[in-house]
Amino acid sequence: MPVAIEPRAAAPKIILTRPLDPSFLEGGALLDEAERKGRIELVRWAKDKPVDRQWLLDELRKGGTEGLVCMHNGEKIDDELLDAAGPSLKVVATMSAGYDHVDTAALKKRGVRLGSTPDALTAATADIGAMLVLMASRRAGEGVRAVLDGKWPSMPWNPLLLCGQSLKGSTVGVLGFGKIGQLTLKRLLGFDVSRVLYSTSQPGVALTPEKDYFNTLATAEFHGVDVRPAESYDELARESDFLVLCCPLTSATKGIVGADFLSKMKPTAYVVNTARGPVVDSDALLAALQEGRLAGAGLDVVTGEPNIGADHPLVQEPKCVVLPHIGSATVQARSGMSRDAVRNCLAGVGVEGFEWANEVSL
Amino acid sequence: MPVAIEPRAAAPKIILTRPLDPSFLEGGALLDEAERKGRIELVRWAKDKPVDRQWLLDELRKGGTEGLVCMHNGEKIDDELLDAAGPSLKVVATMSAGYDHVDTAALKKRGVRLGSTPDALTAATADIGAMLVLMASRRAGEGVRAVLDGKWPSMPWNPLLLCGQSLKGSTVGVLGFGKIGQLTLKRLLGFDVSRVLYSTSQPGVALTPEKDYFNTLATAEFHGVDVRPAESYDELARESDFLVLCCPLTSATKGIVGADFLSKMKPTAYVVNTARGPVVDSDALLAALQEGRLAGAGLDVVTGEPNIGADHPLVQEPKCVVLPHIGSATVQARSGMSRDAVRNCLAGVGVEGFEWANEVSL
Repeated sequence: MPVAIEPRAAAPKIILTRPLDPSFLEGGALLDEAERKGRIELVRWAKDKPVDRQWLLDELRKGGTEGLVCMHNGEKIDDELLDAAGPSLKVVATMSAGYDHVDTAALKKRGVRLGSTPDALTAATADIGAMLVLMASRRAGEGVRAVLDGKWPSMPWNPLLLCGQSLKGSTVGVLGFGKIGQLTLKRLLGFDVSRVLYSTSQPGVALTPEKDYFNTLATAEFHGVDVRPAESYDELARESDFLVLCCPLTSATKGIVGADFLSKMKPTAYVVNTARGPVVDSDALLAALQEGRLAGAGLDVVTGEPNIGADHPLVQEPKCVVLPHIGSATVQARSGMSRDAVRNCLAGVGVEGFEWANEVSL
Repeated sequence: MPVAIEPRAAAPKIILTRPLDPSFLEGGALLDEAERKGRIELVRWAKDKPVDRQWLLDELRKGGTEGLVCMHNGEKIDDELLDAAGPSLKVVATMSAGYDHVDTAALKKRGVRLGSTPDALTAATADIGAMLVLMASRRAGEGVRAVLDGKWPSMPWNPLLLCGQSLKGSTVGVLGFGKIGQLTLKRLLGFDVSRVLYSTSQPGVALTPEKDYFNTLATAEFHGVDVRPAESYDELARESDFLVLCCPLTSATKGIVGADFLSKMKPTAYVVNTARGPVVDSDALLAALQEGRLAGAGLDVVTGEPNIGADHPLVQEPKCVVLPHIGSATVQARSGMSRDAVRNCLAGVGVEGFEWANEVSL
């Protein structure tokens, strides 16, 4: 008996800007299944490299696209692109927590909804934050580099060789105290830190129990760590031995860790950035490191990435360890992000049985 | 009025095999003060590189040396050296936790006491253990290397690029459950691990509350992590997703993580060694990594160090991240180690006001 197949013309058209391997990424499997069942019409960018802008504009101009599953890297969602899509577009679903590549005003103006995936990558990013605090303060970048360069045999042990600083008794500052900031801090609480200062976009405002997503306050109490909101960004700069940046990139946070902020920090302090590159002023950071006004930095993100070459001064600077934006790079996180992005898109175009994982309020 | 100075002939002679900068290292300041006050006669190896064996033998053969403050790296304390020192030698104080460079039987035969510094470096080494668990599982070695080699611009983001594994829900195995093992575990308990198996030299024997030095068991309970002794080394090998080696190097632990042990491990597991290089069989580890029988390794110690060149196969292996033995490399730890080594030596030669920090039972 033939199976009744819903006519494909009725299925909403979705464009996917990156292959999502269904054997590792749940979102890829969800899309494949929806396509196979004829519930969506899927147009795929087939190459494993960033989508070609012109290809995407051309596909959108064919008309009828209702959903777009896009990535963070190198894809600008702007007026030109939305004009190309026309009024059929209902939802942009980015497979990322941040959406600074999306012109939210342009979306709002057209009534296009926006989905993001902030939850699936929280743990992976928190782990990288804690790791970078350790790597920066224990000079792991210098250590790895010395071994790779074959210098170990000619640098036999001496009592102060490659000595770093301990977290014991230190004050940890967290700028951006949403889920990632809270969980990064929770990881660090087991390292005998003494005190924590945090700040959201509103310095001085205390975390409420309802927004304490990971039991971080009770964990701090268990470890005997004093946790309170910083009264001001100035206090955060002045008091932190380790400053971890976990805030979104907004007009208010762009360049917030610049020359002025860094001038207030201790020369023995470390800065770790797992947020977005432009939160830190690269030139000001470099100057502080080179002039001995800051002990070290650990960066998972750098302004201008991925165009950060071996000759970039922050890569060259021994006190700075740079990772190629691997904050969300666990199989678990990427699979969850793909799942949430696809859910957002399928819910946004009205495929039955799917609910939004996270809709951004525009 | 002239100050009465005790005749130097009465002061016990001590040899120090490495300069200890008194502005950073408390032990250096203690020795300087004791020398200045004429309470010891101090013979110093003045160069900031390992002591020349012949210089040391010649100094010892001059006779009268009562105490020797030595380092771990490259200094063998053996029959030849003890014969050179003769019967005046009362104490060997090594500035290290491990004393596998010391022939303990040769010391015991002559009635020479041995001091070591296990406590001052516990926190620093535990931090490196936790850091290497993260670095190995998050492919930080590959990430750092890619950035240093200028590859970031040509490897734009893709959904599975440099993806590692999360600690969430994992089983952590700890081989060697003394102070360093316990504190390493305590650091990792904040990373959402599910279960811990540990083993001392006696598998199956549970940690008693009196030997739980850092409240690790209560911390595990707080985090809801199941902690119990492994019934056997086999179980430790079979069940661990992350195996951390924190045991002393003894005839029983030499090569314990060899071909047989590794053949029982999961292909998705990681090995981290912050103990001593020879605890791991380097060839067997390399084979397991190359053949996909182990996911990755993080090594702070490697057999044959410091003669580990850039062409060493474990340095070349992308799944292995190697640090140049920086486990105890914090200013705080090294200062404490120097203090404890000098205390051991001064107590051993009978300088008034000094007590042993840690005497090794021979």
